[in-house]
Formats: sequence, C-alpha cells, structure tokens
Amino acid sequence: MKLASIKSGGRDGTLIVVNRSLTRYILVPEVANTLQQALEDWPNAAPRLNALSEALNDGKREDAEALDFSALASPLPRAYEFLDGSAYLPHVERVRRARGAEVPASFYEDPLMYQATSAGFLGPRDAVPVVSESYGIDFESEVVVVTDDVSMAVGAEQAARHIQLIGLINDVSLRNLIPGELAKGFGFVQSKPRSTLSPVLVTPDELGDAWRDSTVHLPLRSWLNGEHFGAPEAGVDMQFNFAQLVAHAAKTRPLGAGTIVGSGTVANKDESLGASCLAELRMLEIIANGKPETPFMSFGDIIRVEMLDQEGNSIFGAIEQVIEAYAG
Amino acid sequence: MKLASIKSGGRDGTLIVVNRSLTRYILVPEVANTLQQALEDWPNAAPRLNALSEALNDGKREDAEALDFSALASPLPRAYEFLDGSAYLPHVERVRRARGAEVPASFYEDPLMYQATSAGFLGPRDAVPVVSESYGIDFESEVVVVTDDVSMAVGAEQAARHIQLIGLINDVSLRNLIPGELAKGFGFVQSKPRSTLSPVLVTPDELGDAWRDSTVHLPLRSWLNGEHFGAPEAGVDMQFNFAQLVAHAAKTRPLGAGTIVGSGTVANKDESLGASCLAELRMLEIIANGKPETPFMSFGDIIRVEMLDQEGNSIFGAIEQVIEAYAG
Repeated sequence: MKLASIKSGGRDGTLIVVNRSLTRYILVPEVANTLQQALEDWPNAAPRLNALSEALNDGKREDAEALDFSALASPLPRAYEFLDGSAYLPHVERVRRARGAEVPASFYEDPLMYQATSAGFLGPRDAVPVVSESYGIDFESEVVVVTDDVSMAVGAEQAARHIQLIGLINDVSLRNLIPGELAKGFGFVQSKPRSTLSPVLVTPDELGDAWRDSTVHLPLRSWLNGEHFGAPEAGVDMQFNFAQLVAHAAKTRPLGAGTIVGSGTVANKDESLGASCLAELRMLEIIANGKPETPFMSFGDIIRVEMLDQEGNSIFGAIEQVIEAYAG
Repeated sequence: MKLASIKSGGRDGTLIVVNRSLTRYILVPEVANTLQQALEDWPNAAPRLNALSEALNDGKREDAEALDFSALASPLPRAYEFLDGSAYLPHVERVRRARGAEVPASFYEDPLMYQATSAGFLGPRDAVPVVSESYGIDFESEVVVVTDDVSMAVGAEQAARHIQLIGLINDVSLRNLIPGELAKGFGFVQSKPRSTLSPVLVTPDELGDAWRDSTVHLPLRSWLNGEHFGAPEAGVDMQFNFAQLVAHAAKTRPLGAGTIVGSGTVANKDESLGASCLAELRMLEIIANGKPETPFMSFGDIIRVEMLDQEGNSIFGAIEQVIEAYAG
C-alpha cells in the first residue's frame, strides 16, 4: 500500500491511503488520523490500512478523491528520529579523491551515519526556503526506510523485519556551511536544514522483486530545472543495506515507531549514470579539470526526484521543489 | 509553574502541574493531555496552566495528589528536536589540554552544537540500560531550555522570548565509543544514547533573579554513588547564553514547539568547584599525573543531578539513576 498525508488536520497532517497509480486517495480516520499514530500501532493498523488500500485499488471506493500532490504534506510532517547513513561509498570516495585524501579502511566495515533533524519535513511540492544563495544550496537524492519500534542492540536480520515503509528524500545541504561546521568535529546542524520526503511512502511489497536484501534495486532519478541530472542504481554499490543501517542506528538505543533511516546520496562507481547531488558533479569536474564548473543552486532553481518501476510508473510520486529566498 | 509528566497515558505520558515544593500535583486535562500539546498552544495554554499552578500552590486544590518521583516519565518523554550546545569552554579547554591541543579561536565566537537524539528520554528515576561497561559509561550534567515555535534565522534577542521552560539533563555518554565515531567526522550517534531530563521543567519566573541574561545563575550539583562530585556554577564561564544557543540552532531552520536546547556539560575555570562528568575529572588526572585514575561508571553505580535555589530547595527535583546491564 501507499500512504501519504494531506496538509489539513494539524502539525502531523491527516493520513490518507493512495492508490497504486497515485491518482486517487481516501481518508482513513477509522484506522488512524496520522501516519505516526498508525506506525505506533502497526501490527493492528497495517492489515486494516491494507484492506482499505485493496478496496481503493479495486475501484470499490466511490468516495475516493483526486490526488493533488501540491496539497500533500510530507507523509511524516515531523518525526522523532532521522538517522541518515552514507552507504554509497563511491560518493564518499569521490569527495575524498577530489581533495587527494584516502577513504579510511573502516568505512567499508562500519557505516557512516549522522543524527539528522527530524522536527519538520517540507511537503513534496513545497518551496525550499533558504536565507542566502551564498550558503551553497544543494540537493541530495536518497532512499529512506521507516521502522516501527526496534529494540536496542538488534542484529541486522532482526532489524530487517522492522522496515515497514520505503520512500525517497531530498536531503537539502548547504555546502558552504559544511566545512566550517564539520571542522568543529560534532557533525551537521546549520548545514543540514529541513529535508523533503517523497509524496508517498510505500510498504516493501509494492516494490516486488525490486526490494531484496533490504535494498531497493531501481535507479533513483534526479532532474535539475527539467533536465536529466542523474539516475544511479540504488541497488548497486550500497555498501550497507537498510537492515545493517537500522541495526547500526539501534546499537545503543531503541528506535521508536516512525524512525527514518536514510541511505545517503545514491552514487555508483559507474560515472556514466550521473549523480544525485551537485557536489558530486562538481567533484568530478575538479578531478577532471582542477576546478568545479557547475554552480550550486540559485533561487528559482527546481529539483525533481523520482523513482520509476520496471514499467516506468512512478512508485513514490515526484519530489519537485523550487529554491526560494527566505523572506523572514 | 512547574510541569511534569506521569507515566500513564501513552508514549507522551500525561501532563501534570506540580507544586513549588515538589510534593503534590494535579492533572490538567482541561488544558492539555501532554506537555507537547501544551507547548504547541503555549500562548493559550500557559496562562491557564499558570492559574492552576497558583491554585495548587495556594492549597486550594484538595484533589492534589502526593508526587512520587519514580512514577514520573520524562516531562517530555520524547521530542522532535534536541540540539545540545557545548557552551562551557573550560570543559572543551580541558579536553584539548589533556591531549596537548589548542582550542580553535572560532570556538569563542561560534557555538559548538550537535544534533542529539530526541526520540526518547528516560524517566528521572529510570535505570540507564547499557549493553556493556566497556563502552565507557559517563554522565554529563547540563542545563536545558525548551522553546515554543521559533522562526528560522531569528536573532538572539528574539530567540530569548521563545525560551518557555528550563530544566536539567543527564546527557549519558559512552566515552569509549566517541573517538571512533568522531573520527568519522559526522558527529555522535552510537556514543550518545538516550538521556534523562529532570523530574520537572519550570518557567523562567520560578528561578527569580537566578535567571538573567538567558543564563541560570546557580550551581549544578552532581553526586556519584551518594558522594558529592561537583557543583560548578552554571552562571559562570557560559560562553554563549541560551538565547545565543537557540539563535544558533535556528539559523537555517525553524524550531518547532518543544525543541530542547542544551548548555553542554557545566564546567568552570575554577577547578575547586568540581566537574559535571567523569571525563573531565579524568582529564584533570591526566594533566596532573599523566594518566586517569577514576574509572568510568559500572553497572550499579548511581548518578544524582540536582539544582538548589538560594534557600536550598530543589528547583527541578533530582535526576537519580542507576546504571544497569541491558538484558535484551
């Protein structure tokens, strides 16, 4: 099934079930008012939502309404925890290579992950407000999973059973704030503002064979100002799968229902497939020509992130956002 | 007024108003079921809660019940955002001095802050579950503030007006996991498990003159296994006050109601006042003797953190927790 939230109803929006082709939806107050509520009662809520989803997909819900992506809030307008991995090592390797540094051997055995802000996610068609273009505005196209309650110190095999929903994210990054912030040694705060989840989150069964080994085996497509930017394969070069990332996150803490775990920027060794962020394209330019040529994003630029199934149908709907000057 | 949450009622507990002497409480369902709900509607909820608090303190609530600290959940059992500063530079200076490094000049002008886990806070008398003593278990006694909604890019003066509640925190740290994690460059995840807020959070007026310049001017007291450990002055050597810390946190994102901002481990230049964590005592031992003598915490060790007003009365109640082997 495919789940989303409309903007009405408060800070957490209102949960809806969306049909497979992303054209119609129904409200489901008899199960839960918000996605967070559903996740907190997942063993009960999931089968009931699934039955409603089947009726919707079978055309048996005459009360279904037309889906308007711009009326959607983030499926989780806010969450209690977002842990973002960096599982595609070609991305890390290129960053390091551009500055002549090695990737530590430990990076191939122990996931890189940071505590990200989860207090607010922009709607999938909301503008991204930024104070200044001088911050170095970039997108990062990633895959995420959402868990139900996960016990502390679970192994990867057990962690896999807690992955209940899959989606995409545009993890907005302010590149020019990153070096100063990381140099302080405590990770990202100001350089990672609010991010944007895909219009819908889906249960793993919606991906069919494309979900195996806790990895999504499909290209992740990004367009910048309407032009194809990159479509690296999310199923290739993912050094740590989502089960391993969830287990890493849960090593010393339980994860509450609704925890979001991110893959990091999807990137392949095969450079011909393109990138999932401007920083990486700029790194390839630095490696090739000694300096970057592509600028970071300007106000008015539009980023679109989407994943299509083998038949070319959008699975999660498209994230599509304009970068906007923050008026204050 | 003083606010807390009892453990009944779900994942967010149930909001209660506690009297000034921390002996009695009332339920306040007519205003809000949870502290998070109250914070989201603070301009309406605060005056109503305050009126109930006055009635309680005036002995006019015969329905008031005896307060049992062990029945308390964390006042915010979970939150959407916790940004922990490191505003007491003597702590940072000692860490660096112990390893022969300088403190970067920028640390005196730009707050050090990290994105901390907010998905769950232990109750003030709950045991702290840890898988292994080999993780290097430590406490960190800090002051925190809680905001209502804060706009992106506010200045410090405006940020000060959004500080609605004040409390304490034991920011549990797993010291032996920190070097490896920080070496990866993305901050803390596994080395900072769930923390513990004080039994109650209080509005700034409860501190009287001890709250000025967005700083708490009282000693923060820590006891380890019943013995006095340290009582550094929270009003001394705080390089950045809470208004500055909130503004730093909000530079590129709005902060939602219920955001927690921490001071970092309270530490003074005056070493005679003692420390607020074992790591710092061990650093002084390294500086004096070349090696640490005090071990990190063992299973069964008890940490107590409290702040008393000028008359010796507990303001926030005591955090008091035993370290416990995690059974799985």
